[in-house]
Amino acid sequence: MATSGVKLLGVPPSPFVNRVQISLNLKSVDYELIPENPHCKSELLLKYNPVNKKIPVLVHDDKPICESLIIVQYIDDTWTSSSPSILPSDPHDRAIARFWASYIDDKWFPLLKQLQDAEGEEAKAATVGKITEGVVLLEEAFAKCSKGKAFFGGDSIGYVDIALGSCMGWVKAVEKIANFKILDETKTPALCQWAGTFLADKAVKDVILAPEKLIELFMMMQAQQKPASN
Amino acid sequence: MATSGVKLLGVPPSPFVNRVQISLNLKSVDYELIPENPHCKSELLLKYNPVNKKIPVLVHDDKPICESLIIVQYIDDTWTSSSPSILPSDPHDRAIARFWASYIDDKWFPLLKQLQDAEGEEAKAATVGKITEGVVLLEEAFAKCSKGKAFFGGDSIGYVDIALGSCMGWVKAVEKIANFKILDETKTPALCQWAGTFLADKAVKDVILAPEKLIELFMMMQAQQKPASN
Repeated sequence: MATSGVKLLGVPPSPFVNRVQISLNLKSVDYELIPENPHCKSELLLKYNPVNKKIPVLVHDDKPICESLIIVQYIDDTWTSSSPSILPSDPHDRAIARFWASYIDDKWFPLLKQLQDAEGEEAKAATVGKITEGVVLLEEAFAKCSKGKAFFGGDSIGYVDIALGSCMGWVKAVEKIANFKILDETKTPALCQWAGTFLADKAVKDVILAPEKLIELFMMMQAQQKPASN
Repeated sequence: MATSGVKLLGVPPSPFVNRVQISLNLKSVDYELIPENPHCKSELLLKYNPVNKKIPVLVHDDKPICESLIIVQYIDDTWTSSSPSILPSDPHDRAIARFWASYIDDKWFPLLKQLQDAEGEEAKAATVGKITEGVVLLEEAFAKCSKGKAFFGGDSIGYVDIALGSCMGWVKAVEKIANFKILDETKTPALCQWAGTFLADKAVKDVILAPEKLIELFMMMQAQQKPASN
């Protein structure tokens, strides 16, 4: 179902923006991506998200919705007839999906940033340990949520798939930068297979940037943050 | 509707536990409160919430649900016929309610803890400033969400009422401890009136402890954290 009047403020390297793009693709909703300059917040962003001043912002019929997981739920609540639900229909399954999405956002994904900031080999090793513990938990969660099917959401991409899958571009980039495997065939075989299936899905494949592109952007950001030499 | 098989792991001074109690009361669901020792996590807690190891945990038909706002949504999704919905029915209103609940949990309520930890008058004044800015934002949000009615949820207690209202015991305790008004008749007249109405509601009034009791508990916790003198 093509739908006009949908705008998305964001930038393609952001996994949080990617969540919204994937959800809109799953629901076959057309949208206009309005790029944001990461170094200078636009008037539109400040108008639509005056509290957090952050992307993504979805604008639907001139009404803004902010925070990526809230936007994903809004999309699921709004375009109900065009594809399977993103959230499970059973209340307990829905609560479990919300739990893991919240775990990914509040606990696990921030560890990747923490790894970048860790100073010294000991601190880096401790963070790698936490990332690995987390991914093992997510492997167990996958077994329970997917019930032997391809996705956390069962036969189709669901809420946890979007929450975790949107991070996969950066996961692969960090694997290359830090030279260690986050998803590992031995410890997390199911997640390895899941990541491949997720990234190849037609709602996803043109959304998430290749790790090489993300590394290039990361290096540019690092260079910009360094003080200019005299 | 009385319902058996519902247990709640938690302690009465926790605003996060209070959210679940209020939601169950709104839905007329009977439950058994299983107290947790804050200094020694029970086997039951570790069994039911092995990832975060935190209260509250709702156990319904032996299945656990964790994280207070996720539990509130589960209760709303499960007991659908016994009272008005906790979440608004309109998708945009629902997204806005989720936004403010998330703002309260991630940004605003943690400032009260930050105030306790602030060292020096300057740091304290800066935190008081942020608390006040936040409460002014919430006053504006109240005007938009309530549309002139008694609650954020309109005629009845809703999601944001529960998220913010559960903090009101500690808000009043902090007002007394730190000797400044968080809810102020001049700057936030609507929230002042709302807090009174919320705390007097029959689903709430026996749940949230009096500020004097919370201060007593706070002083006990402070004393326990101090190293014993020789």
